[in-house]
Amino acid sequence: MIIQLDKNIQTVELEKVEKKLAEINYKATSVKTQYADYLIAVGKKEFDIRAIGTLPGVKDIHRVSDAYKLVSKKWRVEDTMIDLGDGLQIGTGNFAIMAGPCSIESEEQVEKTINHLAAQGVKIMRGGVYKPRSSPYSFRGLGIDGLKMWHERASAAGIKIITEVMMVEQIEDMLPYIDVFQVGARNSQNFNLLDALGKVDKPVLLKRGISGTIDELLQAAEYIFSNGNERIMLCERGIRSYEKAYRNTMDVNAIAILKEKTHLPVIADPSHGIGVRKYVDKIALASIMAGADGVIMEVHETPEKAFSDGQQTLSFPQADRLYKRMRQTFDLRENF
Amino acid sequence: MIIQLDKNIQTVELEKVEKKLAEINYKATSVKTQYADYLIAVGKKEFDIRAIGTLPGVKDIHRVSDAYKLVSKKWRVEDTMIDLGDGLQIGTGNFAIMAGPCSIESEEQVEKTINHLAAQGVKIMRGGVYKPRSSPYSFRGLGIDGLKMWHERASAAGIKIITEVMMVEQIEDMLPYIDVFQVGARNSQNFNLLDALGKVDKPVLLKRGISGTIDELLQAAEYIFSNGNERIMLCERGIRSYEKAYRNTMDVNAIAILKEKTHLPVIADPSHGIGVRKYVDKIALASIMAGADGVIMEVHETPEKAFSDGQQTLSFPQADRLYKRMRQTFDLRENF
Amino acid sequence: MIIQLDKNIQTVELEKVEKKLAEINYKATSVKTQYADYLIAVGKKEFDIRAIGTLPGVKDIHRVSDAYKLVSKKWRVEDTMIDLGDGLQIGTGNFAIMAGPCSIESEEQVEKTINHLAAQGVKIMRGGVYKPRSSPYSFRGLGIDGLKMWHERASAAGIKIITEVMMVEQIEDMLPYIDVFQVGARNSQNFNLLDALGKVDKPVLLKRGISGTIDELLQAAEYIFSNGNERIMLCERGIRSYEKAYRNTMDVNAIAILKEKTHLPVIADPSHGIGVRKYVDKIALASIMAGADGVIMEVHETPEKAFSDGQQTLSFPQADRLYKRMRQTFDLRENF
Amino acid sequence: MIIQLDKNIQTVELEKVEKKLAEINYKATSVKTQYADYLIAVGKKEFDIRAIGTLPGVKDIHRVSDAYKLVSKKWRVEDTMIDLGDGLQIGTGNFAIMAGPCSIESEEQVEKTINHLAAQGVKIMRGGVYKPRSSPYSFRGLGIDGLKMWHERASAAGIKIITEVMMVEQIEDMLPYIDVFQVGARNSQNFNLLDALGKVDKPVLLKRGISGTIDELLQAAEYIFSNGNERIMLCERGIRSYEKAYRNTMDVNAIAILKEKTHLPVIADPSHGIGVRKYVDKIALASIMAGADGVIMEVHETPEKAFSDGQQTLSFPQADRLYKRMRQTFDLRENF
Repeated sequence: MIIQLDKNIQTVELEKVEKKLAEINYKATSVKTQYADYLIAVGKKEFDIRAIGTLPGVKDIHRVSDAYKLVSKKWRVEDTMIDLGDGLQIGTGNFAIMAGPCSIESEEQVEKTINHLAAQGVKIMRGGVYKPRSSPYSFRGLGIDGLKMWHERASAAGIKIITEVMMVEQIEDMLPYIDVFQVGARNSQNFNLLDALGKVDKPVLLKRGISGTIDELLQAAEYIFSNGNERIMLCERGIRSYEKAYRNTMDVNAIAILKEKTHLPVIADPSHGIGVRKYVDKIALASIMAGADGVIMEVHETPEKAFSDGQQTLSFPQADRLYKRMRQTFDLRENF
Repeated sequence: MIIQLDKNIQTVELEKVEKKLAEINYKATSVKTQYADYLIAVGKKEFDIRAIGTLPGVKDIHRVSDAYKLVSKKWRVEDTMIDLGDGLQIGTGNFAIMAGPCSIESEEQVEKTINHLAAQGVKIMRGGVYKPRSSPYSFRGLGIDGLKMWHERASAAGIKIITEVMMVEQIEDMLPYIDVFQVGARNSQNFNLLDALGKVDKPVLLKRGISGTIDELLQAAEYIFSNGNERIMLCERGIRSYEKAYRNTMDVNAIAILKEKTHLPVIADPSHGIGVRKYVDKIALASIMAGADGVIMEVHETPEKAFSDGQQTLSFPQADRLYKRMRQTFDLRENF
Repeated sequence: MIIQLDKNIQTVELEKVEKKLAEINYKATSVKTQYADYLIAVGKKEFDIRAIGTLPGVKDIHRVSDAYKLVSKKWRVEDTMIDLGDGLQIGTGNFAIMAGPCSIESEEQVEKTINHLAAQGVKIMRGGVYKPRSSPYSFRGLGIDGLKMWHERASAAGIKIITEVMMVEQIEDMLPYIDVFQVGARNSQNFNLLDALGKVDKPVLLKRGISGTIDELLQAAEYIFSNGNERIMLCERGIRSYEKAYRNTMDVNAIAILKEKTHLPVIADPSHGIGVRKYVDKIALASIMAGADGVIMEVHETPEKAFSDGQQTLSFPQADRLYKRMRQTFDLRENF
Repeated sequence: MIIQLDKNIQTVELEKVEKKLAEINYKATSVKTQYADYLIAVGKKEFDIRAIGTLPGVKDIHRVSDAYKLVSKKWRVEDTMIDLGDGLQIGTGNFAIMAGPCSIESEEQVEKTINHLAAQGVKIMRGGVYKPRSSPYSFRGLGIDGLKMWHERASAAGIKIITEVMMVEQIEDMLPYIDVFQVGARNSQNFNLLDALGKVDKPVLLKRGISGTIDELLQAAEYIFSNGNERIMLCERGIRSYEKAYRNTMDVNAIAILKEKTHLPVIADPSHGIGVRKYVDKIALASIMAGADGVIMEVHETPEKAFSDGQQTLSFPQADRLYKRMRQTFDLRENF
């Protein structure tokens, strides 16, 4: 059960609500976000919610039986729109493109990518400065210095930055230089990291786990939301299956389902999804038809020379063609 | 190695080719289809194919290192177009819709479905008369009598029939009443059935196994082709994964890959793919963007009363809307 | 609901039972096996089974809510023992070893294998004469002539034969020469083949599908049983997962669960399970501890020269060591 | 390539080694553990390792082509033995039992569990004080105070403690009160946590990811090892598959493979593996036959009242019976 409280609810009013919940043996968790105050009450007894809904200080009340609560569309019917500033909004009805290299490598690389994006009207640049790597002997990214260099150039060009955060300790350092925190697939159930990201006022793009369920993804988002941060995007990036003809099984089904289950924006990552350059365009377009609010993808001036092996990375001309097709596909879908 | 022979190659010429292959220790299989004669030669030795390619009676020769041979695009660059008669063609550049109920139930149901399809310009009707069922105590379809009844009405309306064949013994009986044989997911590696379908001159739609690989699907098609029947369509219908938020994981990635690997048409089955009615439309459209040459889908006047549970079945109005959107999506894709 | 009828139930008595079922809207299927007559009644209404259980001609009645019925331990508490003749019995409390090559290759190979088995007291020989192969260009086995040759030698040595049947048409030809029909993983839902095997009076070893569920395996067994053949063994042979460090994921969990869900014997196939020679022994022993009533495994005098690649095949000395360890492990388990 | 250096290698000697590596374009990473100093050199050029192996200050050198290096049996042939003190050693030839509740709940529960373990000669107690939970509204454990209470009682009884650490910040607080750090499946690729655990001198039990590959598990162990901590155990705890008849697919195949690939001890977790109480015993015994050096399992005085749902938890009498059978099974295996 979700109870939204008046922002200026009085202590005595709140106590009455809590007493009522205690009477029916519901355990209540207080949630305060940048926008509203809630009580999440979990219990077993059948109960007429109007008995609480009509109390002073209660703004709204609703039953949500899913394991996830505040991120459910059963709670909030209207889709969440995330404002990145400068008129840039992510959510239903807008189409967001986030493009850039796997890793931030050099000033020159950043400059060239920014020029490429600017020429195409792409407003958000992706790139890694902290890289999760399977092997401890691999390159782990340029770190905070790389991020500062990147931020200086990107902000000058009016380009927003999304990049992965891997641990709680990095959050504070990164905060001034990023526009969206990304949580990678391997950290999708790193609950302490999710808790911490719930306490900052920057949007978070949360990737589905490598074999995470849709339900687990929504509960992971609930971690962030219930810690205070409502500005969350979900990202489908492919799951692990038995098939080895591609890198991951991009699960466009999940996109369709997420758009129905949650009010949060849903972003597709076809680069890591299918993971093979020559198919990325088809999977990007398929994802849009499945309902995606945006696409995050890898581009590089010379993919074959990228730090990562670049197998899933588009060249600039390939990306140019795809940006155009994605926008056409989105327009068709919106006009259905 | 694939060697295409002249249709009128002389015995002495053929013997020379075979002798050459024997010399390099290649095992040759003779393949005669409705369109051409081939030798499929498998061996290990490196070899200059021109030594055979220049022999009299040899029309073409090509190396294909994949386990599948004749269905590979490495062999035949031009995509296969399957002619169903009456100007109806399935293959790259055309868009095929096949719609109908899970099971053929009654004359009334058939009539209503035909009227629905005809009104929408849908030329191919799907439906089951032999139903594979997990439980031996379930309804197994109306059988050959149902097929005859269906065929009478469909052919009168100019509608083609696609339906599943489950065993070799059924083929001959079904042959006069069907336009396309369908092989279901559970029979995707029923090699004797595939062999037998290679010997009839009717197109075959071959579904991917429940957890079949893309490679296995192509090798299964090779069974049909190498027995003489070149008119094969492949069908992606969802694979088994750990996710339980939907029925199957529709693998649109496979559609993209199949379109690159083979010259055969690729059809999407979103009904069995995601398997949940309210998402079928999105997955159908996503499949088109991934490259599908057609969509096979379940429709029923009253889905909730269908023999099957009907959870994946669209109502007529839902289907009408989807036909239109699929055609728009296909048009956009073709005009990229 | 399962109703076991007296073997000599009178027509008028049977009609009363059927009338009673019709009254409560239960659909009844008559099942006659080599041992007993049953009615399988499926319906939704809650119902006091004593109203039928006390009717004349009714021997036993029980509710079984699973999709599988007669193979369920809820129906038959006592485990099934399958008698192969000559004192050889498969089922709880006995331990069966079935060993032999992937394919029957030659008289010499058969002789050597029989000598090896006889020296070790192994009474059942496996081997393929009809081989399901992914590629149509691969060797498909010696066929019925190979089987006859094998049978002559095996029966002379008092060794039983288990071999795969791939299609209905082969059953009659094979019948005089085999002791157990094997249904391969690819045919685990070839319902027509299962129906046909239900009509012969030879035991059947039914393999789990490549990604078949435990429930599907039990329903496939129900096909055979409900067509009249109660002598069925189930076989776990590994499932498909994302892991590629081995060939299949041998699911020993399934062995433990099957032994609880069904009264049928459960056999482990570690050769196809893990599919890598050096681990076969450990997985065989693990399967016994999980509850297996027997093990089917590949042995060959020179594994590396076997028709199949032989990667999962043990040499004779490796097999000798494993036979001994399996028996020790089984003894320990039985004495717990 | 792994180069083990003399503990007292001189700077000038080290520089010579590094120079040699630079000449062949190998990138070297310095690794210092509690036992030895290494250089891990990664490069592409073929190279005669004796040119470095014979340099002063070099103790040993070996090529390891796997992505994991120091944890590979190709580097260290002799299996690692982990000493927990008081004569308790984990590794090949010993058999370790770790048992206890899912969560530490109360003093009374701890007392009862310790008495149960002590009576059975079980020397290591498991239990969670920091609990990873899918939902933010679930109980997350008693935290550090619970750990202190537990430690006081356990150490008085001579029982060692293994418990999960979820974030870097917890390590220092937990250090005085635990004997083995456990890394849970959800954190198996939380590389910052792995780095940090590589810097403490306490053993680590590392669980395989929910759908982690065997290779990823070994590379995760390499993270810990290469940061300085050689005392690592690996734990198989079930993977995600399509089968829903049990909670996870306990992958005993992985146990067999890990024992061949690495010198580190391998522990089986049948409680989370199959995840259903009545099958835990069979899977525990199967795991031993597959090669496990120990078993970690859940026990509770009243499983149905445990904080977690307790579905995978054994009662004390069930556990008593299993301890005995595991020891018998281990003895049989060691005497093969």
